[in-house]
Amino acid sequence: MKGTVCFDHSKAVPFTAPEEWGQLEAAVRHAHFMLHEKTGLGHEYLGWVDLPVTYDETELVRMKQAATRISQQSDVLLVIGIGGSYLGARAVLDSLGHTFYNVLGKSKRQTPEIYFVGNNISSVYMSHLMDVLEEKRFSINVISKSGTTTEPAIAFRLFRELLEKKVGKDEARQRIYVTTDRNRGALKQLADEAGYESFVIPDDIGGRFSVLTPVGLLPIAVGGADIDALMAGAADARRRYLTPDLGENECYQYAAVRNTLYRKNKTIEMLVGYEPQLRFFAEWWKQLYGESEGKNGRGIFPASAEFSADLHSLGQYIQDGMRHLFETVLHVERSQRELVIGEEEVDRDGLNFLAGQSIDYVNKKAFEGTLLAHLDGGVPNLVVSIPELTAYHLGWLIYFFEKACGISGYLLGVNPFDQPGVELYKANMFALLGKPGHEERKRELEARLQGRSDNVFNG
Amino acid sequence: MKGTVCFDHSKAVPFTAPEEWGQLEAAVRHAHFMLHEKTGLGHEYLGWVDLPVTYDETELVRMKQAATRISQQSDVLLVIGIGGSYLGARAVLDSLGHTFYNVLGKSKRQTPEIYFVGNNISSVYMSHLMDVLEEKRFSINVISKSGTTTEPAIAFRLFRELLEKKVGKDEARQRIYVTTDRNRGALKQLADEAGYESFVIPDDIGGRFSVLTPVGLLPIAVGGADIDALMAGAADARRRYLTPDLGENECYQYAAVRNTLYRKNKTIEMLVGYEPQLRFFAEWWKQLYGESEGKNGRGIFPASAEFSADLHSLGQYIQDGMRHLFETVLHVERSQRELVIGEEEVDRDGLNFLAGQSIDYVNKKAFEGTLLAHLDGGVPNLVVSIPELTAYHLGWLIYFFEKACGISGYLLGVNPFDQPGVELYKANMFALLGKPGHEERKRELEARLQGRSDNVFNG
Repeated sequence: MKGTVCFDHSKAVPFTAPEEWGQLEAAVRHAHFMLHEKTGLGHEYLGWVDLPVTYDETELVRMKQAATRISQQSDVLLVIGIGGSYLGARAVLDSLGHTFYNVLGKSKRQTPEIYFVGNNISSVYMSHLMDVLEEKRFSINVISKSGTTTEPAIAFRLFRELLEKKVGKDEARQRIYVTTDRNRGALKQLADEAGYESFVIPDDIGGRFSVLTPVGLLPIAVGGADIDALMAGAADARRRYLTPDLGENECYQYAAVRNTLYRKNKTIEMLVGYEPQLRFFAEWWKQLYGESEGKNGRGIFPASAEFSADLHSLGQYIQDGMRHLFETVLHVERSQRELVIGEEEVDRDGLNFLAGQSIDYVNKKAFEGTLLAHLDGGVPNLVVSIPELTAYHLGWLIYFFEKACGISGYLLGVNPFDQPGVELYKANMFALLGKPGHEERKRELEARLQGRSDNVFNG
Repeated sequence: MKGTVCFDHSKAVPFTAPEEWGQLEAAVRHAHFMLHEKTGLGHEYLGWVDLPVTYDETELVRMKQAATRISQQSDVLLVIGIGGSYLGARAVLDSLGHTFYNVLGKSKRQTPEIYFVGNNISSVYMSHLMDVLEEKRFSINVISKSGTTTEPAIAFRLFRELLEKKVGKDEARQRIYVTTDRNRGALKQLADEAGYESFVIPDDIGGRFSVLTPVGLLPIAVGGADIDALMAGAADARRRYLTPDLGENECYQYAAVRNTLYRKNKTIEMLVGYEPQLRFFAEWWKQLYGESEGKNGRGIFPASAEFSADLHSLGQYIQDGMRHLFETVLHVERSQRELVIGEEEVDRDGLNFLAGQSIDYVNKKAFEGTLLAHLDGGVPNLVVSIPELTAYHLGWLIYFFEKACGISGYLLGVNPFDQPGVELYKANMFALLGKPGHEERKRELEARLQGRSDNVFNG
């Protein structure tokens, strides 16, 4: 194991004494066995626990071949998916890829441009994307378990039609890749009939835990990241976090400490990073924790910030606002690129004392200075460090957060693997759209919306 | 006034009765007079209140000329700034511009590519940006009141040097545009000596209220947006919200309702939109409210989400998690682009009942369905509608939120115009970086950091 993810909880100590976490030891052990013996709530969705050692190696090879083919046949890959079928791939691609990936010339990038669509219902977004595609060859990877989720289904209708218009049905067939259920569903059926190459979303892995399945891996491979290394990192993390012993298991410590803080009314957790590339890793993390724990009137509210940018926007609040939050810092120890601060003849900006220092050194001191400042402001700080932003370490980090999330959800007393609250807006939307069979609900909802313009202030 | 911003609070009624807001009427009136007569806390930073009618018209003309010149002399504009010197311009450019602005060919875009830098200390980010600039001509707009803020100062050192290496000092002089203090400061001094064209950050307008000064307007003009229309929208909003009467003033109603909800323990406000273009408008809003109200242990925590994408990540939490939040929806009534859903021979995804409907129609029903779903989940919903995403309406919306923020901060009982909490991390950072004169603090901080690796679990 080439240097690993570390969890440092020493900066939470002023707020929650070690004895408090110790009291969770038995509960953590219990949660551990529920995960590994599949005896807890949501046990039918625990395929991710052993995935790093049980995944289908032939399918991984097939993904790499598909990625090569996509790279040869197209300038652009469109990834159609929402939620877990969007955020995982985006998180990894952004974290490992070039900050200006789609802007770079092909000669520098080598791999296709990648755009995500089907995660919103914005005609502006989709129409703008069509502008980009105008003179470009493109392939599609559509990702959906059922094939009937509204957002990706609309986008797939639209962009498949565009592709078929551009290159004909036969050639389009070669450029559409489907990631879906092994046997069932509208998308699986379509893929079989049309002859699209398809990849499997395992039955026992929910969307937010699916980044290391073809859901995430195919787009990640197209972006040029090393998916073998990603899986190797996850596999080493799995091994490292196999012990039920809280004292030995840093992954479980993260789960225990954040639960202790929650019980002391720290109801918001901010995931903060000092590398802009991590923006979507934080979005992935927000889904993972928010959707797993936000139920039955409970759960830590997951938020994120990008430092030092947001120290100049949310920094004031964190330092001195309402004391209902704690921070978890994602700390990258070694930067992949280095730049040195130059000396100026006249030291107008007062930075000559830094001449000859690397910019990353300044970034690290910003991290340390902020850690202590926020601590003094009454904000517990947890630190998750990774040695470097590589595929291996990112795979490790993903597994760390996934397993901690499972444990944490059980400590909270919820089913961490369902998401019943996502259905109501869909049901309302379908009724309002006039889907046959929902006429009564439609009338009822429309009546409730009527009240909108009454200004109660003037009533 | 061509159709205006509307505020609808009817979906907060189940949580807070109109009589409650009514009790704030006198306090709102008082806050109004504090703002307009400059008698409240922070009254020295109220220049933004009348800015839409008092701004320097000659400077506006000069900005438009500079924008044209930049467009002629360069392929790329680098905007160097942090906090309010970053988020305002970015918010407006993203909201009004093409979703894939920097990716589009110049022939479609017409105006220069625009990149923001100096809002982080990431060597990866800056080094990647240099990759983009390799074969491109670029200009710089550096924005800083003092010229000594670390992040933009480092970036300016780096990219000015790069520019001077590329085109020589004389030509670089023509391509650097400075936005800074009228008379004082390191950057002003440098601009005068080097002969850079400069624009003024007014003394009485703080960073987060500065988007309608040259801080925001110059980059916005370079991006091709209509800054006259932006100012006209703000001016009409200013006129509309001149009345101290809560019953007549929707801007003040927003301030009053959110304060009432806060007093009932709704301590998180999520600004949500259904257009991905609004992502950075929400970031701008988060700075505006978080930095203005997050002090003295108080204030609503500002968060944001992008629907429908985040309905598949944060949606579960919002629907069914801890009940400490409310939503403010940014609703755009008319979409700028239209796309229609096609009919398929075999209705596999079940969407044929929508064939012939516009995608934006579906987006609107998602909004309405979500509004009622979240309401039923116990989440008060406020709705701020704008007719269209145009410069005029965005100018209006900016002023709406700025003025509501001033009123809201006074209702909360804080100084909405200072940000003392931003200083501590800077002081710590400078000490840790070994800035001469801070030796003792350095030792002290380093000793505190030492504790990091002690694992208390094993202690």
